[in-house]
Amino acid sequence: MNTYSYNHIKTMAEKKNQDICQQTHFNEKAVKQVLKRMESSDNLLELAHFFKILGDHTRVRILNALYFSELCVCDLTVILEMNQSAISHQLRILRTAKIVKYRKEGKNVFYSLDDDHISDMLNQGMIHTKENKK
Amino acid sequence: MNTYSYNHIKTMAEKKNQDICQQTHFNEKAVKQVLKRMESSDNLLELAHFFKILGDHTRVRILNALYFSELCVCDLTVILEMNQSAISHQLRILRTAKIVKYRKEGKNVFYSLDDDHISDMLNQGMIHTKENKK
Repeated sequence: MNTYSYNHIKTMAEKKNQDICQQTHFNEKAVKQVLKRMESSDNLLELAHFFKILGDHTRVRILNALYFSELCVCDLTVILEMNQSAISHQLRILRTAKIVKYRKEGKNVFYSLDDDHISDMLNQGMIHTKENKK
Repeated sequence: MNTYSYNHIKTMAEKKNQDICQQTHFNEKAVKQVLKRMESSDNLLELAHFFKILGDHTRVRILNALYFSELCVCDLTVILEMNQSAISHQLRILRTAKIVKYRKEGKNVFYSLDDDHISDMLNQGMIHTKENKK
């Protein structure tokens, strides 16, 4: 092995170790308190699933549009420049996860964000994403 | 085709059409207003990426633990019953997305949620998930 590759590997290994503890010692009190307060594994699995559904560009675009106004599927086809079938597919996923809700009026179906938790989350997520770009 | 299968297919088709507009007519005023206020496609792509990172069971478990206390990697290995290498891998992903931050103290590395937006989002997400279980 030449000097360059040895140093390179050494630097990489050091870099990788920078963010982990160099001694194994845990804080028993903190661990106990956290374990007592943590959500069940099932609840956290559902929360992860909920975030996973939000982690899609088209679905986030739909939600961002609905953040500003209740809209019918036809409106969304114009805003997103997508066909009704593709949008309906994503809306069904969002509805099943109770992220959006709908109501019928005559021959149209109007969608809106399910509740304030959803709009708050979109808002917080957007603020965080924009702050990280600075 | 027998009567049963015809009716079955008819019902399925009707069900599928329940949630889409039966006439194509969009609200020009609403569409214009929403288009004016919507985030750029790039920003929404980043927001989707941010949610995608949150959409993982292990990462959500880590975040739920950090929601209650700043913890070192050793603490997290005990809480999550996982090895340090697996946890560090997820922490690096969370750190790159600025969802968690870290500080060194002696030979230990302490992690915490990056800011209040993250803890608010976890809280809102958990409330929403629990409400849907009722």
